[in-house]
Amino acid sequence: MTVSSQVDADSENSVFRRDCPSRDIFEHLTGRWSLLVLAALRPGSRRFHQLRDRIEGISEKMLSQTLRTLERDGLVERTVLPVRPPQVSYALTRLGEEAARHLCGLISWIGASAPEIRTARESWDNSR
Amino acid sequence: MTVSSQVDADSENSVFRRDCPSRDIFEHLTGRWSLLVLAALRPGSRRFHQLRDRIEGISEKMLSQTLRTLERDGLVERTVLPVRPPQVSYALTRLGEEAARHLCGLISWIGASAPEIRTARESWDNSR
Repeated sequence: MTVSSQVDADSENSVFRRDCPSRDIFEHLTGRWSLLVLAALRPGSRRFHQLRDRIEGISEKMLSQTLRTLERDGLVERTVLPVRPPQVSYALTRLGEEAARHLCGLISWIGASAPEIRTARESWDNSR
Repeated sequence: MTVSSQVDADSENSVFRRDCPSRDIFEHLTGRWSLLVLAALRPGSRRFHQLRDRIEGISEKMLSQTLRTLERDGLVERTVLPVRPPQVSYALTRLGEEAARHLCGLISWIGASAPEIRTARESWDNSR
């Protein structure tokens, strides 16, 4: 008997199945950079260089790819501002706001739990 | 002026900094397999082969590594059951339960939003 048959089927379970579209969305959304880009856009729209400066360690290429994936998924909207030279800005869509709200809950929890997690690690490392 | 200076400093911001311990925890926790392992343990303790069967596409090696990282971070507890042959089971700690609660909120949202995200993708693909 597999575990699947022991657990009631519900919408959460589908991310466990390799062939389920939710798994694909899950993997896009939880890529390291996607999470940080969504969180960085939560306070409001940002221009490309602002996101690059905000998210330490992201390359311009990776930021472009991540924004494109999020735009394709309907989570981020790209706007070309009618000025000279043209300026491009990025903002969360309503769907993106919802995703970011869940992510920011997780991020706040990590911030609050970091000391406890560090203590757990030290105790694990010392016991080995 | 960088974006950092425009946004109030709070505990959420530190994941954006490469040198902050929260970033490291964030990356452990949001690795694709960590998220799925935490979510798979939410209903209750599981044995290794149950997790492997539940999470389609994970290799035994990757599952071992992921469980070890989560155990070191104090999120998962490993118990050797006193039977012959010995059986090993894995369960969330209190800290792990908290993390899993946030993750499952995100996973439920993905399940509910999948149709809308798929529609967004189709419309993006058709416009190109």
